[in-house]
Amino acid sequence: MPSPTEPTPDPQPPAAPVAASAAVETGFHRACVLGLGLIGGSLVRALRRLGVDVVGYDPDERTVAAAAADAVPVAATVAGAVHGADLVVLAMPLPNLRTALTELAPHLRPGSVLTDVGTLKQPVLDLVAELIPQATFVGGHPLAGTEESGWAASDGELFRDAPWALPLEDGTDLSAWLRIAELLCHLGSRPVPCRALEQDTAIARVIGLPHVLAEALALTGLDGGPLGLSLAAGSYRDGSRVARTRPELVATWCDGNPPLVTALDDVIARLGAVRAGLAAGGSVYDLAAAAYQARTDWEHRRFLPVELVPDRAALLAHGAAGGWITAVLRDEDGTRLLGMRPH
Amino acid sequence: MPSPTEPTPDPQPPAAPVAASAAVETGFHRACVLGLGLIGGSLVRALRRLGVDVVGYDPDERTVAAAAADAVPVAATVAGAVHGADLVVLAMPLPNLRTALTELAPHLRPGSVLTDVGTLKQPVLDLVAELIPQATFVGGHPLAGTEESGWAASDGELFRDAPWALPLEDGTDLSAWLRIAELLCHLGSRPVPCRALEQDTAIARVIGLPHVLAEALALTGLDGGPLGLSLAAGSYRDGSRVARTRPELVATWCDGNPPLVTALDDVIARLGAVRAGLAAGGSVYDLAAAAYQARTDWEHRRFLPVELVPDRAALLAHGAAGGWITAVLRDEDGTRLLGMRPH
Repeated sequence: MPSPTEPTPDPQPPAAPVAASAAVETGFHRACVLGLGLIGGSLVRALRRLGVDVVGYDPDERTVAAAAADAVPVAATVAGAVHGADLVVLAMPLPNLRTALTELAPHLRPGSVLTDVGTLKQPVLDLVAELIPQATFVGGHPLAGTEESGWAASDGELFRDAPWALPLEDGTDLSAWLRIAELLCHLGSRPVPCRALEQDTAIARVIGLPHVLAEALALTGLDGGPLGLSLAAGSYRDGSRVARTRPELVATWCDGNPPLVTALDDVIARLGAVRAGLAAGGSVYDLAAAAYQARTDWEHRRFLPVELVPDRAALLAHGAAGGWITAVLRDEDGTRLLGMRPH
Repeated sequence: MPSPTEPTPDPQPPAAPVAASAAVETGFHRACVLGLGLIGGSLVRALRRLGVDVVGYDPDERTVAAAAADAVPVAATVAGAVHGADLVVLAMPLPNLRTALTELAPHLRPGSVLTDVGTLKQPVLDLVAELIPQATFVGGHPLAGTEESGWAASDGELFRDAPWALPLEDGTDLSAWLRIAELLCHLGSRPVPCRALEQDTAIARVIGLPHVLAEALALTGLDGGPLGLSLAAGSYRDGSRVARTRPELVATWCDGNPPLVTALDDVIARLGAVRAGLAAGGSVYDLAAAAYQARTDWEHRRFLPVELVPDRAALLAHGAAGGWITAVLRDEDGTRLLGMRPH
């Protein structure tokens, strides 16, 4: 069981330790990253900093040229990239996964760990179970990213202090899960133990919903004509910023995730209530006050360091409580984990 | 009539010229600013940089102490602040205006110009017409501001490159309007000629709506529990940022503005359509693609410099087309204006 100790004095969670270049024992020696967009490219850069031998692959010629120009080894085929890798990372959009899994299946060597970086976790889990049931698969979702995309936007520091949802199902190999969690801690990110379906439900509210609202604002805000375009300022700009995300990507994050329909029902009901209030001469004050409180509470959350044992139920309880892993420690007595969780 | 000239080579409109400190002839010699929050305080700082003698007033003792500590002359009463001023700026929330106008009415000297910096323009126009019909009043609304508030957040550069809606009604004194427009150009902001009701309609979509959506997101995004709180990242953070605005302020920007009810109807209809699509196995792609286009078009608008005559109809047409004023020039041949408008 986790044992809360002293509260951290700072309202912001502490930054993860910076890994010394090429000096960290990651447990992986040869990784391949399939897909060299913002996330895949950033992961290539981050893994190389840890001293991991990384080979990339991307179907797009210009992306390959850009990565090669940055001295990244790029394989010409999926098979070539996967060959000899003990870590295989799927970093392409969900619609491309079926083809990629089919191509790599014959080349995945026993003992290798397969992971991914997609937004929705249950569909990937289902697809892997269907196409490569023998694979040691640990899904993952780094909550890092911007409205930029492509290799050119990639950044080896993208994952620092970013949550990284790491589904831990009944069928997940706990040892492989711990190795991935350890690697992610070395990247400076924050592995969050969770169930795939729980993460997809949470993501509907904190990724899908913000994107749909930003898009609805981007359009509805400007529907009033040119005067509004010139008066639009900070609140319009910020509120609609993620509407600049490539529509294909937004669709892969939102489509086929039933909890997003529920989240939209909730937000529509909330907006309908404030609309009715305003139409009746009422005020947005109550909504604004409740939102102010929720938003500032979220921003000022405090966290406690905890120690955890590598037990599936304990890890899941930690993640469900809003906690994450900060280190995986191994010594003669076995494995233990350090983490942070809300105060 | 405006005469479009060469397109600007840069997609961003050019920055307004920086006024040399204390060297600009603003046409005003003694200003008073009633209310020393973010906007009023920033205006005090900006006017002082132009060499205008400014006296402040605020009912809050701590605000008075903070402004005085920054060497700003602060009057103890509204009457004391208004005495001798040729420019009187109302910079308090809408609910406080009635009292302020009643207090200052006996002290406003003939020929002085009264202006304000509130978000909604028609209610202020109505209130001034009711309480000081003899005043030379030019309403104004700087589209500058952050979720921060108070004197401590004030910044003399807050208005640089910011739109500043400047209602020009049939009853507005054109000469006073031009003097205010000229002053705002010296502050580096962008006066936008418009009707008060048109600006309130536009503001419903680009100020009211973004705030209500940010508040609905702040709450609905976190309704899923602790896991969502720890997975919330950039899109939640940005989308809910303005929910950190003081609720009292948001209420003054949103309440009593019927066009906001219409804007909410529009956004609810849009969200309902995407919700129905997703529930039926469809995609957010069409919404995301349309929003991407609208948002990037807005960001990449190009502008043409134009020259304008001080004619009410010509100025209003310029503002309605998305244009603003960059300079008011006076010479022996009379007054002309320079402006920018969308390409």
